[in-house]
Amino acid sequence: MGKVYKVGIVGYGNLGKGAQKAINAASDMSLECIFTRRPNDVKLNANNVQVLPVSAAADMKEKLDAVLLCGGSATDLCEQGPYFAQYFNTVDTFDTHAKIPEYFASMQAAAKAAGHMSLISIGWDPGLFSLQRLMGEAILPSGDSYTFWGPGVSQGHSDAVRRIDGVANAKQYTMPIEKAIASVKNGENPVLSQRQRHTRVCYVVAKEGADKDKIEAEIKTMPNYFADYDTTVHFISKEEFAEKHSGMAHGGFALRSGTTSDGAKHIISYEVNLGSNPSFTSSVLTAYARACIRMAESGATGAGSILDVPPCLISEMSAEEQRQKLL
Amino acid sequence: MGKVYKVGIVGYGNLGKGAQKAINAASDMSLECIFTRRPNDVKLNANNVQVLPVSAAADMKEKLDAVLLCGGSATDLCEQGPYFAQYFNTVDTFDTHAKIPEYFASMQAAAKAAGHMSLISIGWDPGLFSLQRLMGEAILPSGDSYTFWGPGVSQGHSDAVRRIDGVANAKQYTMPIEKAIASVKNGENPVLSQRQRHTRVCYVVAKEGADKDKIEAEIKTMPNYFADYDTTVHFISKEEFAEKHSGMAHGGFALRSGTTSDGAKHIISYEVNLGSNPSFTSSVLTAYARACIRMAESGATGAGSILDVPPCLISEMSAEEQRQKLL
Repeated sequence: MGKVYKVGIVGYGNLGKGAQKAINAASDMSLECIFTRRPNDVKLNANNVQVLPVSAAADMKEKLDAVLLCGGSATDLCEQGPYFAQYFNTVDTFDTHAKIPEYFASMQAAAKAAGHMSLISIGWDPGLFSLQRLMGEAILPSGDSYTFWGPGVSQGHSDAVRRIDGVANAKQYTMPIEKAIASVKNGENPVLSQRQRHTRVCYVVAKEGADKDKIEAEIKTMPNYFADYDTTVHFISKEEFAEKHSGMAHGGFALRSGTTSDGAKHIISYEVNLGSNPSFTSSVLTAYARACIRMAESGATGAGSILDVPPCLISEMSAEEQRQKLL
Repeated sequence: MGKVYKVGIVGYGNLGKGAQKAINAASDMSLECIFTRRPNDVKLNANNVQVLPVSAAADMKEKLDAVLLCGGSATDLCEQGPYFAQYFNTVDTFDTHAKIPEYFASMQAAAKAAGHMSLISIGWDPGLFSLQRLMGEAILPSGDSYTFWGPGVSQGHSDAVRRIDGVANAKQYTMPIEKAIASVKNGENPVLSQRQRHTRVCYVVAKEGADKDKIEAEIKTMPNYFADYDTTVHFISKEEFAEKHSGMAHGGFALRSGTTSDGAKHIISYEVNLGSNPSFTSSVLTAYARACIRMAESGATGAGSILDVPPCLISEMSAEEQRQKLL
């Protein structure tokens, strides 16, 4: 022990700022630099942390043990992931579930070619919830898995509402349906439609003179996003919006309900309740950056996910300490 | 894929019987034999499964990929663990927390010498809860961890009551205190004494003519076991005992309540609710037997715990399938 890992952050939004705090809270990590597309816009209260353009990655090649990719899945990561994997071990939060196999392939190719280790899709979902889904299925092969999200803001759905004509601003909250969760926890193995699992609640600031009935109808019938859910729309003032809807709390449930061959029923419930989604996600990312570096040190290369990481590697404790205090 | 692992079971009590069912439910495992100290007493409804004395282990050396040690920690495992690790990869449920470092050392020595892999302390606590404790501390280093057990029977405490003069039979249930769990889940980070975390409830069948007041007083003041808890004692008939207290349900909670440096509070809650403790524990053991064999196949030797196992190895799914369906 005693070794300090040198790391960098790519992107300085909410996630990057959270990662900075999480790295500072770790006694075995040192933040060396922040890569950003707009270095002149980033003001740091931190000495010894360089602010660099993304194009400076090659110059830092030998100077970092890993970089934490803190950009979004929608546009940033598909490009930044393979680019940074050329130069560094990487961890990221890629969370577009449907595109994971494709993203994995591109990261696998880039990291293998460069001899680096890249952990993708680290966070709580994908991430901690993926781990629960895997363990639930492996331990209780006969059973059902359930994932519920919220209460919390869905960025994608908020964006979709904001794109509607006449909408000045909007936030969409995904709400898990308590009755459905209770039924799962009660071992009833319910078959649940989308509508029976979550409701959606929108807070909308309308532009002056906009037709609110039309906006509401447009939201509620929007295919894929809202049509299959019970949706409530609240119109509020700009001031109320600013005051009440700037929080970033989130959470969710990953549940497994299964039966062993003797007929006994077993329920495994995992729940996260997060004061700030980006702060928590970046804390997971930071712990897995430690694991990524250690996997690379032991010779691993290529892409992997939380499912591939021996959990002991995310901890600052020695193996002896882990066995004594945690096992 | 397509490979079938050949495994054996050591010990044919509740845990061994559960393991047999779990192995039969896995499409990639085949139960070859059961080792027991009393082979003549074991009646199997299973063709092709040999019942063998423990002393036959050496004869099976090349014929099994792993054995599941299903004896108890108190006496069996300290002896059987190192003995079987000479001949096979092993998994066990060693659960005497205080003696884990010592047991680990003896398994490490035996398995290393023989070139085998031995996973110790696999189950839910130690086991799944250990994993939660490690992950909670690594992700939220600033915070508190809490473990609650029950409602469920504690074997050790039931034994202690049965040893009291005048007691014919007894079961002790450990009950988590709901108010304490609610306080943790509410982010209050309470400091909890033993008395504030669990209560103990005893169901006792007294021998004819026994002094019930004396038995009750003796239970409630028993040091280590009961003196530090609020304990309730119910005297019941032999018939009621047989009818109502033969169940093996159990459960518990592993919770982490932490704060990130931005001041946001986060709670991770893990709960298991088990219809049968031995059936569930043996299901965990079986999934980790798969991982143990795979770790050995990739060249690992020596002792490890759940903390050392890449989770992907416990699943029957291929890596591609895991990424697509679970990540």
